[in-house]
Amino acid sequence: MPVTLLALYRRPDGGVEALETFQRRYAEEHAPLMRQVPGLRSMEVSRVQQALTESDIVMTCAMAFDGRAELDAALASDEMRAAGRNIRAIAPGLLTLLVVEREP
Amino acid sequence: MPVTLLALYRRPDGGVEALETFQRRYAEEHAPLMRQVPGLRSMEVSRVQQALTESDIVMTCAMAFDGRAELDAALASDEMRAAGRNIRAIAPGLLTLLVVEREP
Repeated sequence: MPVTLLALYRRPDGGVEALETFQRRYAEEHAPLMRQVPGLRSMEVSRVQQALTESDIVMTCAMAFDGRAELDAALASDEMRAAGRNIRAIAPGLLTLLVVEREP
Repeated sequence: MPVTLLALYRRPDGGVEALETFQRRYAEEHAPLMRQVPGLRSMEVSRVQQALTESDIVMTCAMAFDGRAELDAALASDEMRAAGRNIRAIAPGLLTLLVVEREP
């Protein structure tokens, strides 16, 4: 059963400049690190264009794996540890990270 | 440019029973109402299996539309109003609703 690692990023303090810096570092540093993680099948980054309820989420990323075992191996990998260190540096305290499974 | 309406549902008060009631009413009442919304291209419901950071999100639903104009028409439709009334009844105050656009 495929599983998805769903990352939700909250807006950083510091206005438009801080948001642009986060988005640039995400694209230039974090995405390339994530793409090296073993077992990653796809990675879809989306920007929030509008919040229809109160929300401070500004970006999402859905990362697909073939199954829970493959995700667990990925989470334990050196490549994921490097990606984790990077995201804690560029988005400290701004990440919600969920394992989700699509309903049949 | 396709757009997605991303719904994030927080855990209801009331333990496992309240969560199961929400999930049952979502599947039996809300999903059929949403599927009638004009312009909806696909609808992916996912359950949160694990939160790797602190989070009270238990379910997500990604609803795809062909573009912003199609989404706006959907949001203004009688069918969406009916779906909105339903979700406010079965998940009061538990919904975060975002318009997201995938990065190229």
